[in-house]
Amino acid sequence: MTHSFRPNGIVTLLTDFGLQDPYVGIMKGVMLGIHSPMQLVDITHGIAPQWVMGGALALAAAWPYFPSGTVHLVVVDPGVGSARRGMVVEAAGQLFVGPDNGVLESALAWTSAEGEGARAYLLEAQAFRLARVSRTFHGRDIFAPAAAYAASGVAPAAFGPLITAPVRLAFPHPTAMASRQGAGWTGSILSADVYGNLITNLGVECLSGSGVWRVMVGEQELPLVETYASVPKGALLALVGSTGRVELSVNGGSAEKVLGLTVGSEVQLLRGNPSATGSPEVSEQP
Amino acid sequence: MTHSFRPNGIVTLLTDFGLQDPYVGIMKGVMLGIHSPMQLVDITHGIAPQWVMGGALALAAAWPYFPSGTVHLVVVDPGVGSARRGMVVEAAGQLFVGPDNGVLESALAWTSAEGEGARAYLLEAQAFRLARVSRTFHGRDIFAPAAAYAASGVAPAAFGPLITAPVRLAFPHPTAMASRQGAGWTGSILSADVYGNLITNLGVECLSGSGVWRVMVGEQELPLVETYASVPKGALLALVGSTGRVELSVNGGSAEKVLGLTVGSEVQLLRGNPSATGSPEVSEQP
Amino acid sequence: MTHSFRPNGIVTLLTDFGLQDPYVGIMKGVMLGIHSPMQLVDITHGIAPQWVMGGALALAAAWPYFPSGTVHLVVVDPGVGSARRGMVVEAAGQLFVGPDNGVLESALAWTSAEGEGARAYLLEAQAFRLARVSRTFHGRDIFAPAAAYAASGVAPAAFGPLITAPVRLAFPHPTAMASRQGAGWTGSILSADVYGNLITNLGVECLSGSGVWRVMVGEQELPLVETYASVPKGALLALVGSTGRVELSVNGGSAEKVLGLTVGSEVQLLRGNPSATGSPEVSEQP
Repeated sequence: MTHSFRPNGIVTLLTDFGLQDPYVGIMKGVMLGIHSPMQLVDITHGIAPQWVMGGALALAAAWPYFPSGTVHLVVVDPGVGSARRGMVVEAAGQLFVGPDNGVLESALAWTSAEGEGARAYLLEAQAFRLARVSRTFHGRDIFAPAAAYAASGVAPAAFGPLITAPVRLAFPHPTAMASRQGAGWTGSILSADVYGNLITNLGVECLSGSGVWRVMVGEQELPLVETYASVPKGALLALVGSTGRVELSVNGGSAEKVLGLTVGSEVQLLRGNPSATGSPEVSEQP
Repeated sequence: MTHSFRPNGIVTLLTDFGLQDPYVGIMKGVMLGIHSPMQLVDITHGIAPQWVMGGALALAAAWPYFPSGTVHLVVVDPGVGSARRGMVVEAAGQLFVGPDNGVLESALAWTSAEGEGARAYLLEAQAFRLARVSRTFHGRDIFAPAAAYAASGVAPAAFGPLITAPVRLAFPHPTAMASRQGAGWTGSILSADVYGNLITNLGVECLSGSGVWRVMVGEQELPLVETYASVPKGALLALVGSTGRVELSVNGGSAEKVLGLTVGSEVQLLRGNPSATGSPEVSEQP
Repeated sequence: MTHSFRPNGIVTLLTDFGLQDPYVGIMKGVMLGIHSPMQLVDITHGIAPQWVMGGALALAAAWPYFPSGTVHLVVVDPGVGSARRGMVVEAAGQLFVGPDNGVLESALAWTSAEGEGARAYLLEAQAFRLARVSRTFHGRDIFAPAAAYAASGVAPAAFGPLITAPVRLAFPHPTAMASRQGAGWTGSILSADVYGNLITNLGVECLSGSGVWRVMVGEQELPLVETYASVPKGALLALVGSTGRVELSVNGGSAEKVLGLTVGSEVQLLRGNPSATGSPEVSEQP
């Protein structure tokens, strides 16, 4: 009975609209006109304009913390007005409404303990959108109404037929490597947060097995420690952050400023003794 | 029975307070101390400081999407502490609370299908404000309490007598024109959004009649198309945006950056063949 | 019966997380998974990263405007993962959840009319946190769950034993002075708001007694007036702001830009005639 979505009255919003313009408030007005009251929760509206990957990563980090029955309205939609489809995805007892452009990747990738996967439905029923649909603001005209109707009890399948091949997004994955500096993984920076912490795509699963790990950024070596306070104030460090990924930080400062890295910059995770540098090592699968 | 406001429990907030300071949270605390629970919705708090026109435009774009019975708390108030009045405006079954400085223009301008207009009441009853009123934060001391009392069922007329001549705001309107480049309209930029879309005051009603339209910004010509995807990535375009106004955009980019225009910059909407440039044409009312 | 906290369903949030990342939304998801629905109110998430004093000042300005029974979740937490404790403080019929690092100073400093003080409880009960606690995001794993459980009716004492010596924060206080320019107070800038108003630590209590007061910033003198409109557009002024503190402003402009002051800059509040400058005066306690 994995697929039996029952709304709990919570609707989250995740967009690249920013908070300067009234767009987010307008979507909330549309939703409250359809179903009220609701528990509306902003995940973020600060995704860089039209950055689908950024929206997909923020959604992936947030939705596992919401209770079953939550509806997530996700609008990062550079293709608005083109032929790209809209969809409703049911996964893990939650519902995801947004464009079929990869931004819902983490929902599509979900599988239950029994191996059952997510289901994606086409968002096409005229009854669950505004009477007039613009060519530039489907968040207001199509996605927000769908989210409100879903929160009010409209079943996912009522929005349209199953989509068999939704657009998938390839999160950048780390690659195993062997180098003169040691065996390990080559990863990259996914994002930087407000503190200047640099979040990598190196997940905690890369750290399996025994041995001491260290992080290399160019020629710079960062110790992999338990917490910020493990190093002196102002010192660089790496740790497994709150989302289960290796993050680069400065205790009391900004790694983004100190290291000058941006999204996509390469980061290496190496096993072994840093003093071994210079002696060739054998590759080894962590 | 146009004037029979019945609160639905929704209160929106629109200010120039920003989100850095605790001012918005303080107003919400004051309201929840008077009436709780409420459905509080932020329209925006990112209006440029003391920019009454900016607040008026954001309100005009947002309130039509809220259901009947909503209370809108609007505080862009450069004259706080001076002789300017506060007011409560009833229009379209919704209520608007704010200073009498033009920021509520779109509510004041409303008329029903039967030709009945908005009603503005003076905000003077001592019973519906905080016991101590400061000279600098009427949002907290006067407007937020009034909004909460209105949401709890206090009738608009209970706040004070009708105001016969509230301050009106003149939205910049386009002017009809005839030029060597063709007949059309001269308008201006009202605002830029987070994507760098430039929203003009040229409404969809300017486009009535037959013929092909194009947009001129200085020497630059932009095609008037249906949607962003109608032009190649990176190309300039104009389209009728989600608020029914002509907007200047770049597909996948920022027209604000490319064109270097600011609020108030002139934009021309021209009918006819661009190749006709050079031959005089007769003015014509679209 | 001062200490008999009864939750009213309101939970406020005050952090330095910013709104770019999904951290705030994640905390709300955690809370709604424990107790739902709630009235969630953002005080601000724009505290400068890890600025405990900034968080403490924002909290002090906001909480007195919330009704009895409110829970305040406060996370400015540079010491996350270190030995610093978490706590729940009961004061004025409200509850405050956050790290024991001074950010809850205004709650700790509270005393009732009968002289009863705040009570701080250690946040240690395993039952009221997430099953897995990270080393870097106690807002999600410890503080948000505690706030939600408190809002659902868990008594403050259930979280842990009383803390006898919580960390206290010294707000910068003004000092009495006598100078050739007159008797008065030397204070400093606490913060600047979005309008460029500079808020000082000179409280309204410094202004007791008779006489005319003026404000000196370096060689610049500002008149102490009632409201912004008391001086011409563009002119500097000082007034008692909405939080009962002397603020430096420009009518229709930004004092921060005009004066070029920052947090910590010195401000003098002087009694007497500016024309008396040059003649020595006797110090006097206002």
